Amino acid sequence: MSVAADVRLGRGVSIPQPDLVNLYGCTIGTGTRIGAFVEVQRKAVIGARCKISSHAFICEGVTIEDEVFVGHGVKFTNDLYPRATNDDGTSQTHADWVVVRTRVKRRASIGTNATILAGVTIGASALVGAGAVVTRDVPDHAIVAGVPARIVGDIRERGRQARPIGTSRPGRIRRNQKRGA
Amino acid sequence: MSVAADVRLGRGVSIPQPDLVNLYGCTIGTGTRIGAFVEVQRKAVIGARCKISSHAFICEGVTIEDEVFVGHGVKFTNDLYPRATNDDGTSQTHADWVVVRTRVKRRASIGTNATILAGVTIGASALVGAGAVVTRDVPDHAIVAGVPARIVGDIRERGRQARPIGTSRPGRIRRNQKRGA
Amino acid sequence: MSVAADVRLGRGVSIPQPDLVNLYGCTIGTGTRIGAFVEVQRKAVIGARCKISSHAFICEGVTIEDEVFVGHGVKFTNDLYPRATNDDGTSQTHADWVVVRTRVKRRASIGTNATILAGVTIGASALVGAGAVVTRDVPDHAIVAGVPARIVGDIRERGRQARPIGTSRPGRIRRNQKRGA
Repeated sequence: MSVAADVRLGRGVSIPQPDLVNLYGCTIGTGTRIGAFVEVQRKAVIGARCKISSHAFICEGVTIEDEVFVGHGVKFTNDLYPRATNDDGTSQTHADWVVVRTRVKRRASIGTNATILAGVTIGASALVGAGAVVTRDVPDHAIVAGVPARIVGDIRERGRQARPIGTSRPGRIRRNQKRGA
Repeated sequence: MSVAADVRLGRGVSIPQPDLVNLYGCTIGTGTRIGAFVEVQRKAVIGARCKISSHAFICEGVTIEDEVFVGHGVKFTNDLYPRATNDDGTSQTHADWVVVRTRVKRRASIGTNATILAGVTIGASALVGAGAVVTRDVPDHAIVAGVPARIVGDIRERGRQARPIGTSRPGRIRRNQKRGA
Repeated sequence: MSVAADVRLGRGVSIPQPDLVNLYGCTIGTGTRIGAFVEVQRKAVIGARCKISSHAFICEGVTIEDEVFVGHGVKFTNDLYPRATNDDGTSQTHADWVVVRTRVKRRASIGTNATILAGVTIGASALVGAGAVVTRDVPDHAIVAGVPARIVGDIRERGRQARPIGTSRPGRIRRNQKRGA
């Protein structure tokens, strides 16, 4: 069991593999689901009804609002110039650096393996494409993709897009199998 | 032990760290090797004699044929517009989305930390470079790299390439140490 | 406990979650810290006072010198043309490939989710940006970012940079909260 005693869990939080996570000192809201191999550090705050997928890493300084999707392998950061040691060669401790804060607003979705640089705000209902590296603020409803991530669409217009994020051949995608059907 | 009872394992499947994987409802073929911190979801199908490296994630909707190499940290996806909740704020369940299927053909190799978007087919003996984000189908024998991944070579001609994938200074690479020697 | 008996640990190595790592046959120097979900393979060498963050993967053939920061999810590689099987369809073993060696010099920092291609040398005090894919040698003190990684600055001049790595809006970054304060 790697859910530390100081984790503040809301009602109905789902952690199907409690032996394969590393949660400590964080706050997780009502009804949120946490996958395997997830680490959430002290002082991180995750809202209600979020989905935190396997292999995600959420560090101190990150605030995730309600109903956010965090994809598999998504990693946040809180330091723009990380170092192992100080100039004198001693190991850095909590006192040796400043946490740069990051915010993910309500109903945003962050795609698989995306990397979120410290200090950005990801807007409400925005979609970060899989594999993107987010280095700037993402407006509400924007779809961003690439390295560095750039705006490629608007989530409110996705029905009209010729090329949905994540594929360039929508005609090749078979949508006729329902999951769990 | 995080290998669920409903996993269909072929003969001679190797899982050196069974306490550090999360496998459920999937099918894994004869002689395949599974590294640490790997998750394979229900209904995923992995062929024979594959190598699934540590930190890989293989989701429902993915079919991997025989003799495929999946590198460390490779992540598949099965949804182009992932969300945590429905419009009414309730958590999404299996009934609320459609799995987009992905196929990796025989003897393909997927490099470390690559991200595979839902709906693509990766061709036989193709090579996906490390860190690539694959958004389109990859032809048989093609070498692809970058974000988004583009064709940079043909695996059948790699002996002739001036710049093998993964380094731009082949002369600096020391090939004189045999692994395990 | 997934720290194998053949791991050579220096004095004061910190592994807060020994049940959630996979270390075998490697050497780890004095005072180095190892996060959760980290795998370090046989023959990998890590120096003193390093910080190896969660979800990192360090393979055979990698030498990391003293006081190096390895970010969350960083993955090294040791083979430019990985395959699961030989031409005859038998699974590859240690005898079937050549390890390409990689070196990270003293006090370098490698950002979150970066991918390091086999054969490169990362220079002393260099900084690899989050999400970068390093395909060439990185000079001492260089800041590199992107896919493939390119030089974007010099760590000795970061105070003068208008755009520090990882954000394009430094004015939006709130630096007024001390970690752990």
